Amino acid sequence: MVKYTIAVLPGDGIGSEIVPPAVNILKKIGIKYDIAFEFKEALIGGAALDAVGVPLPEDTLKVCHQSDAVLLGAIGGPKWDTLPTHLRPEVGALLPLRKDLALYANIRPVILYPELVSASTLKEEVVSGTDLVVIRELTGGLYFGEKKREKTATGERAVDTLVYTTEEIERIARLAFETARGRRKKLTSVDKANVLESGRLWRETLSRLAAAYPDVELEHMYVDNCAMQLVRAPKQFDVIVTENTFGDILTDQASMISGSIGMLPSASIGGQVGLYEPSHGSAPDIAGQDKANPLATILSAAMMLEYSFKQVQAAEDIKQAVASVLNKGYRTGDLVQEGKMVVGTQEMGNLVAGEI
Amino acid sequence: MVKYTIAVLPGDGIGSEIVPPAVNILKKIGIKYDIAFEFKEALIGGAALDAVGVPLPEDTLKVCHQSDAVLLGAIGGPKWDTLPTHLRPEVGALLPLRKDLALYANIRPVILYPELVSASTLKEEVVSGTDLVVIRELTGGLYFGEKKREKTATGERAVDTLVYTTEEIERIARLAFETARGRRKKLTSVDKANVLESGRLWRETLSRLAAAYPDVELEHMYVDNCAMQLVRAPKQFDVIVTENTFGDILTDQASMISGSIGMLPSASIGGQVGLYEPSHGSAPDIAGQDKANPLATILSAAMMLEYSFKQVQAAEDIKQAVASVLNKGYRTGDLVQEGKMVVGTQEMGNLVAGEI
Ligand SMILES: CC(C)[C@H](C(=O)O)[C@@H](O)C(=O)O
Ligand SMILES: CC(C)[C@H](C(=O)O)[C@@H](O)C(=O)O
Repeated sequence: MVKYTIAVLPGDGIGSEIVPPAVNILKKIGIKYDIAFEFKEALIGGAALDAVGVPLPEDTLKVCHQSDAVLLGAIGGPKWDTLPTHLRPEVGALLPLRKDLALYANIRPVILYPELVSASTLKEEVVSGTDLVVIRELTGGLYFGEKKREKTATGERAVDTLVYTTEEIERIARLAFETARGRRKKLTSVDKANVLESGRLWRETLSRLAAAYPDVELEHMYVDNCAMQLVRAPKQFDVIVTENTFGDILTDQASMISGSIGMLPSASIGGQVGLYEPSHGSAPDIAGQDKANPLATILSAAMMLEYSFKQVQAAEDIKQAVASVLNKGYRTGDLVQEGKMVVGTQEMGNLVAGEI
Repeated sequence: MVKYTIAVLPGDGIGSEIVPPAVNILKKIGIKYDIAFEFKEALIGGAALDAVGVPLPEDTLKVCHQSDAVLLGAIGGPKWDTLPTHLRPEVGALLPLRKDLALYANIRPVILYPELVSASTLKEEVVSGTDLVVIRELTGGLYFGEKKREKTATGERAVDTLVYTTEEIERIARLAFETARGRRKKLTSVDKANVLESGRLWRETLSRLAAAYPDVELEHMYVDNCAMQLVRAPKQFDVIVTENTFGDILTDQASMISGSIGMLPSASIGGQVGLYEPSHGSAPDIAGQDKANPLATILSAAMMLEYSFKQVQAAEDIKQAVASVLNKGYRTGDLVQEGKMVVGTQEMGNLVAGEI
């Protein structure tokens, strides 16, 4: 019997509502496929701040390093927004966790369930058939460069820095080329090379590596144009690779193709231990109301099975179970469509579990 | 008789096709409203590089400073993409021109002509009734911070810097609050304050200034969420204010609400001389083919009449003329709709001029 340890970090806001259904489904998968999952819960974000005074406790890091994969809910919220930067959940916990686990690649497939085509604000003929994946660089770029804040004679001055080295770009680019190779063989590299120095290095590096992937068609696109093309004609994309902040913006935007950001899973890989989390945030406005959509987290668990444990069939089972529940007409509040049955977070989780 | 001098900078790609129709319409407006316009053409971008070896000749700067307003086409193209950064049309001409003219505010209204509602890839009920304006900070942020490139032991390292001072944020914020005051009184300030130090200063500054505008409702939104909300429910927005790069991305994206980026004008203000240019680029792929949509440039000329010359009625005339031509069923290639007549750049310009 295979054995895997999974670190479970519910975090803040809706985190503690969307993670349990995913854990429950992993348990059912374990029984079905004879995998022994051990779950170790740990504190992160505001929840950790409140309990032990730091957003990313040493213990949590230890649990993550000793696990085979990490399942994360979401972190942050207005309660901790006024803390000094280094204590805030995002800068104090999520970013260092990604860095510490060396997760340089964040993979965000835009999954479009046929049942949800009409839930998108985009026209059916525009979105239907979309099948793309965004590969976001996750431990470099504008998020991780030096930050500072200083007093001036008349006020303050705040600085963030966008840094990339050739090596950082090469490793994410290789992953992107290889991902494209296993799909429709088209790679769109997104930058702002006409203005940014980092964008030029990005573009040059991608162009140089392209020689090693003659079977993959590489195209360069400016980030402003890409934001437009994702609304204009998303079907043109297969694999998109881009800088950390650009990837953050473009994936949230692209989520609208799938009807709701509540549908978008993500896998962060690159180190020994992969991290799986929904692409959405902690949604403080609906926290504690059993309203959140747990499907992005459940689908993130499916990505864990696929990427970390190579359990492709088990991952497929989860995706099928989600499709089946959607097909039966169940929806969470973010996806309200006429004639559909609106259910809460727990109920949605139970429905999916029931299909395994 | 009032007299105004307008610097005309066609630039590259479709620039030399979209500017003449706008100039022609200004001439007709001049006759109708008894305004003596003098047009002074000057070189910029790749066109200037090819002719005199620099992207922003001293002469061009002089012409701009001695004019009452500047009408710009578009700049850049693959021909000049491999030049050293400081010579490239964007970094070598457009950015320094904006800086030199002290144009810290770029105003981009997302104008939705009822005739074009069905041309959008977004559903009619989602876009119809949208009326928003994005105010993009234009001379600071990631575009203007220090850039560098250096060799490392194993490759290279490229750096861009995002800097904002309290003063820079205050002046754009004031303009945004005042713009909102003259409209529906809602201001959405967009940042990434949960990760960026500049975002925190941005958010704090906006919050502090809000006290002086009690009649305006200020809301803060993360840039990733805003990119999503612009696709999900654009009607929620009135005025959006944001950093330079974020504004670049969000406006291109928002252009899809209006059916085509070929419809989006822009005004850059803040100094003595305002600059008016379409929000789109030089479109090298369709340059020289009489295919480009001149309406964004024509509508930019209308913004010039309004912002630089306070000729509100004349500006209104141009907008009406555009509406009327669209209403008669004429479209350029970017807006192909069933049952509509596709016309070229020149023809579209003539049709609008004919309505003045
Ligand atoms: C919470 C925030 C720091 C995070 C990010 O921007 O990385 C989130 O938006 C995401 O996309 O995972
Ligand atoms: C050409 C480019 C430098 C420019 C910008 O990003 O400012 C363009 O995209 C725009 O939006 O005006």
